[in-house]
Amino acid sequence: MPSIDICFSPELLPLYDLSGRVAVVVDILRASSSIVTGLAQGVTHMVPFSELEACRAMASEGYLTAAERDGRQAENVDLGNSPFGYLDGLVPVRGRAVAITTTNGTRALHLSTGADHVVVGAFLNLGAVADFLRQQQKDVVVVCAGWKGKFCLEDTLFGGALAYRLAQEFDVSSSDATLAALDLWQVAQPDVAGYLLKSSHVRRLNSLESHKDMEFCVREDEYNIVPVFRNGRIEVA
Amino acid sequence: MPSIDICFSPELLPLYDLSGRVAVVVDILRASSSIVTGLAQGVTHMVPFSELEACRAMASEGYLTAAERDGRQAENVDLGNSPFGYLDGLVPVRGRAVAITTTNGTRALHLSTGADHVVVGAFLNLGAVADFLRQQQKDVVVVCAGWKGKFCLEDTLFGGALAYRLAQEFDVSSSDATLAALDLWQVAQPDVAGYLLKSSHVRRLNSLESHKDMEFCVREDEYNIVPVFRNGRIEVA
Repeated sequence: MPSIDICFSPELLPLYDLSGRVAVVVDILRASSSIVTGLAQGVTHMVPFSELEACRAMASEGYLTAAERDGRQAENVDLGNSPFGYLDGLVPVRGRAVAITTTNGTRALHLSTGADHVVVGAFLNLGAVADFLRQQQKDVVVVCAGWKGKFCLEDTLFGGALAYRLAQEFDVSSSDATLAALDLWQVAQPDVAGYLLKSSHVRRLNSLESHKDMEFCVREDEYNIVPVFRNGRIEVA
Repeated sequence: MPSIDICFSPELLPLYDLSGRVAVVVDILRASSSIVTGLAQGVTHMVPFSELEACRAMASEGYLTAAERDGRQAENVDLGNSPFGYLDGLVPVRGRAVAITTTNGTRALHLSTGADHVVVGAFLNLGAVADFLRQQQKDVVVVCAGWKGKFCLEDTLFGGALAYRLAQEFDVSSSDATLAALDLWQVAQPDVAGYLLKSSHVRRLNSLESHKDMEFCVREDEYNIVPVFRNGRIEVA
C-alpha cells in the first residue's frame, strides 16, 4: 500500500527522497490556489520563477506576469497572487500563458523536481488530486510551501484533508506529520475559514486583500483539474 | 508580552533568530527525559557529544558514558538512553558526570547555542521549565529534536503542553506551529501515552525497550529541576 507523508517546509526537503514518489506542492494562500484557478479559467500554461525580474521579462514574450511579494501585488506586473485575478475579467486570461513568482510557492516547486511527478494541489482541486494519486499508486509527499519556509496551518490542513480522502487506499500512519495533519483537519474542518483566522499571518493577509480570498481558497472541489509541473512549465495533466 | 514559538526540526533552525531568546531543547523519547532524570538523580553534569567515539573516550576521564543509536544502547558504554538507567541502580550515578550522545537530541542542543539560554525540557520537568521561562520574560523557541530531523508527535505535544501552561503570560498565537501544537495537545492530553502509540516510530521504540519507558516519559512534573546547557555542559540551573 503506498503511503502519504507531509513535508512542512521546503527547508526540510533534503530529508525526503522524492524519487519514485509523487510530490504534491501546496501553497493554499495563495499560489497553488491561483495556479489551479488560472488553469481552470483557460490559461494555457504557467512558468514559475524565483526572481521577480526574470518573471517580468516574460512580458516581452507575450506572457502575462503575476507576482506578489509579502502578500501584495508587485509593481509592473499584470496580476497578483489572488485567484480572483483569474476570475474577475479585468485582465483576460483565457488562451494566455502566465509567468508567476511568489514568496513561498515557486521555491517549493523548484525544490520538488526529484519526484516522479510534481502536481499542484489546493482545496480547490482536492478531489481531482486524490483521484490522480489513486491512479499513480505511488508514495505521496505533500510539500508545503509554508510561510517564509515555516510551518503554516493552511498547507498542513490541506495535507490532512488529502490524507483523509486517501485513508482507505494509502498508509496514513507511518508518518507523525500525516497523523498530526489528520488530527488538525478533524479539529478545523467544521469551519476551516474560522479556524484559519486564529493565525496571525492569515489575519494579516485578510487585511491586505478582500476577506473573500481566504474563504475562496478553502472551498473544496471547485475545479476538476490537476496541474503538473514538468520541464519548467505547469500545465493541466 | 513575550512569545512562544516551536521549531519542529533542527533542520529548520536557520529560519529562527535565537539571540535574545530562550531555547528549550526537547527530545521526549528519550534524550531530554533521560537528562532530566539523570540530573535529578544526582549526576553532577552531562556533556553532549555528536560522535560516539568522542563520547566513549570520556570514560578515561572518569565519566560514565551513555549512548544510543536508533533506539538501542550502543556497545562499550555504561548506559543507554532510557531514564531507567538513572533510576534502576544497576550503574550508580550519584556524584558522577556523564558523557552522552543520541541520534537526535545532542544535535538539537549544539545547534541552539545562539540563544541567550538553552534549557532542556521534558514532560518530567514541564512545570519547572515553565516557571523558569516566566522569570526570564524572554521569547521562547521550543527546539524539537524530532525523529531523524523530522516532525515527531511527542516533541510537538511537549511544545503544546508548555504553551498551554504559559498561555496567560506569553503570546501563543503569533506562530502557526504553536497554535497547531496547542490543538494537538488538546486532542492528546486525556491519554498522552495512548495517543503516541498511533505513531509507528513510537511503537518501534516500545518494542525495543520496555513499554514503561514511554509511559514514564509522558509523566508531568516528576522533577523540579531545569537543566541548562552552557559552555558545553548541561547542569542544573
